[in-house]
Amino acid sequence: MPVIESVEAHDIRFPTSSTLDGSDAMNKDGDYSAAYIVVRTDDPGLSGYGFTFTIGRGNDLVTAAALQWAVRLIGRDVRTVAGDPGALYREFQSDSQMRWLGPEKGVVHIALAAVMNAVWDLAAREAGKPLWRLLTDMTPEQLVDAADLRYLSDALTRDEALAILRDQEPTRAARVAELEARGGYPCYTTSAGWLGYSDDKLRRLLQEAVDSGYRHVKLKVGANLEEDRRRLRIAREVVGWDAKLMIDANQVWDVPEAVEWVNALAEFKPHWIEEPTSPDDVLGHAAVRRAVAPIGVATGEHGMNRVLFKQLLQAEAIDYLQLDSARLASVNEIIAVYLLAAKFGVPVCPHAGGVGLCELVQHLSVFDYVAVSASLEDRVTEYVDHLHEHFTDPCIVEHGNYVLPSRPGYSAQMHDASVAEFAYPDGEYWARR
Amino acid sequence: MPVIESVEAHDIRFPTSSTLDGSDAMNKDGDYSAAYIVVRTDDPGLSGYGFTFTIGRGNDLVTAAALQWAVRLIGRDVRTVAGDPGALYREFQSDSQMRWLGPEKGVVHIALAAVMNAVWDLAAREAGKPLWRLLTDMTPEQLVDAADLRYLSDALTRDEALAILRDQEPTRAARVAELEARGGYPCYTTSAGWLGYSDDKLRRLLQEAVDSGYRHVKLKVGANLEEDRRRLRIAREVVGWDAKLMIDANQVWDVPEAVEWVNALAEFKPHWIEEPTSPDDVLGHAAVRRAVAPIGVATGEHGMNRVLFKQLLQAEAIDYLQLDSARLASVNEIIAVYLLAAKFGVPVCPHAGGVGLCELVQHLSVFDYVAVSASLEDRVTEYVDHLHEHFTDPCIVEHGNYVLPSRPGYSAQMHDASVAEFAYPDGEYWARR
Repeated sequence: MPVIESVEAHDIRFPTSSTLDGSDAMNKDGDYSAAYIVVRTDDPGLSGYGFTFTIGRGNDLVTAAALQWAVRLIGRDVRTVAGDPGALYREFQSDSQMRWLGPEKGVVHIALAAVMNAVWDLAAREAGKPLWRLLTDMTPEQLVDAADLRYLSDALTRDEALAILRDQEPTRAARVAELEARGGYPCYTTSAGWLGYSDDKLRRLLQEAVDSGYRHVKLKVGANLEEDRRRLRIAREVVGWDAKLMIDANQVWDVPEAVEWVNALAEFKPHWIEEPTSPDDVLGHAAVRRAVAPIGVATGEHGMNRVLFKQLLQAEAIDYLQLDSARLASVNEIIAVYLLAAKFGVPVCPHAGGVGLCELVQHLSVFDYVAVSASLEDRVTEYVDHLHEHFTDPCIVEHGNYVLPSRPGYSAQMHDASVAEFAYPDGEYWARR
Repeated sequence: MPVIESVEAHDIRFPTSSTLDGSDAMNKDGDYSAAYIVVRTDDPGLSGYGFTFTIGRGNDLVTAAALQWAVRLIGRDVRTVAGDPGALYREFQSDSQMRWLGPEKGVVHIALAAVMNAVWDLAAREAGKPLWRLLTDMTPEQLVDAADLRYLSDALTRDEALAILRDQEPTRAARVAELEARGGYPCYTTSAGWLGYSDDKLRRLLQEAVDSGYRHVKLKVGANLEEDRRRLRIAREVVGWDAKLMIDANQVWDVPEAVEWVNALAEFKPHWIEEPTSPDDVLGHAAVRRAVAPIGVATGEHGMNRVLFKQLLQAEAIDYLQLDSARLASVNEIIAVYLLAAKFGVPVCPHAGGVGLCELVQHLSVFDYVAVSASLEDRVTEYVDHLHEHFTDPCIVEHGNYVLPSRPGYSAQMHDASVAEFAYPDGEYWARR
């Protein structure tokens, strides 16, 4: 039986600010980064890889925090850890000294995400399955035991969670077959719409998106209303009026400003407005939603934890729930959010992009369709064509779909050469600068 | 004109877990800790001191984060920094790479609190005034410029904030005189009520509190209902039925459990239930409040930022707002929360205890009474008799009142000997262990 022998934590930063990839109204110059965790066992063929995503400065803090969680894995039996990730998760979350630093939010929480992502990757590799398959082979009881349901019982009881999963259990295999037949899980692209791009580049990238089969595209807005109008006009010229056009303000507005600005763009018929205001503002999102309908409201990439999502659902504040695979504390918390969303009938359209988020969310979306929501209606998962070359099992997107991953694990492993080159500050790239 | 020449960040930990000081249902073994920042100028007589509070592990992460903010102060002119702390605060908050790690919550946010606390201490020392005096000598415009009003305008506009402050401006001096005449600002004590204490110790400490003039005492609850009943019965025997008896669950319950448990203790007529559930759960607190009235609901020591407090007020979720001086990002964010509370007519009863929080909140409560709320009704500030000996200007509590601080600054400076002894892990105390 393999035993966890050592762990590593790497501060990896990619110099994306130099090309304005990822530029938006709030985040003008991010260097896409990962706090990257490797869990090694005494079996040379079995390791776990996980990470969380940041945009540069402070990634060292997250890496240090993740290492503090990760060292506690050393000496543990892989089967025990992999057999009950819920027990491990609860043990980590019950460290009251670390909890004080959140609780369950910010640096310690995303650091826990990195570590638990590595644990889930390890569990899937040990089982010889891609993560989505590991999850969809678990019983409803096993899934609910793994899920973090603390603080949720006023909205979702354990019995309700079990009932949702049991309803879909008999037909799981049919939905796996259906996804494989249709070519994968539907996605949309944000690659075209960063604020820093010129009109020509915007037009060219949108055309490429349409030509590649995308029926949803997304543009960043919120820095300048007249420029937003010009760029949305270009977008509609290129993609037409049948495609869904989403807009994303990345939290730059107060609530009244959000309402005014979004309504000023209504003529372009946005499918949703994403992150209109502070990600913490449940009541603010509810107010925006009431005021901009029929434009939908979407948020979640900065949704700090399941308690925030519970409230967004209770307050009828969102039309689309955009959980983040590296900000929520891994699969344990994500299962709970999917179950909440199913209970409230709100589609989950996960946030992705960054570094490696696409690699993770492809597994989660398949899990949702197969085991939880059993619906593709209004569901589309983000895809951004950046930085996949650094992963050993990069996601494959064809004709606007994530092709189902087939290799064991959570697709979270980076190439050793990428780690060596972009480790901060001593990797080859940063040492050269 | 003095210039900031160097900064220091110290990880200070006090071994409070050995005596169960500070034990509650969630936090059983905290080592009260401070991420302590010193800002030195080229004037040997002028430095600024600030900190944030944690309970042990991870304090190194906060210290490291605080240092990343603090080094940006080096080379700046003290008058410029002290003359417009709002500009500095906004500059720090607009670092989008650091912002990603919250935003505005968790490790980076409390680290910013430590640094801005040092900046406000420096500003008060440079002016030769205690912080409360510095603030109550500022014009309404200056206070509003210093305040962080971002994301609040749906609940509090800049004009409304100005109007609140202008209403109270002409009578500020009278309220300062009144506080001095009455012996200070009213406080209550939690020193008696930690969960780990024996019944005899509980009884003795409660009697001491009553004998010292306290009319409010607080007990920790939530680990065991029968023990809670026994301890509350003892408390009522000692303090009688005229004193206010508060109870504090430190977030251990889900919402339905909170309602049930608190109502099961209703016979002891608690004044408030503090932290009944997750600190992030605005709607949960509102539900608890509706279900346990007339028992009041209080929360805020883990209130992550002003957006959370805005919603607690909008949702009518709380009867008492317990902001924390080291979790909110210093005076800039705290002014905003006081103004919100005044707008909604909810009394602010700051959280204190820990390390040095009493030293800070005494200034804030005086500011509130003199410049913002102009009311003492239902207002009482926490006091815990721990660890004050480590501060050069410790708070003075007499007859249940915080005596108004008179020395320049924010009372945040620790003795050099305390820093040397309790620095972690290399200070004398920890090196011995």
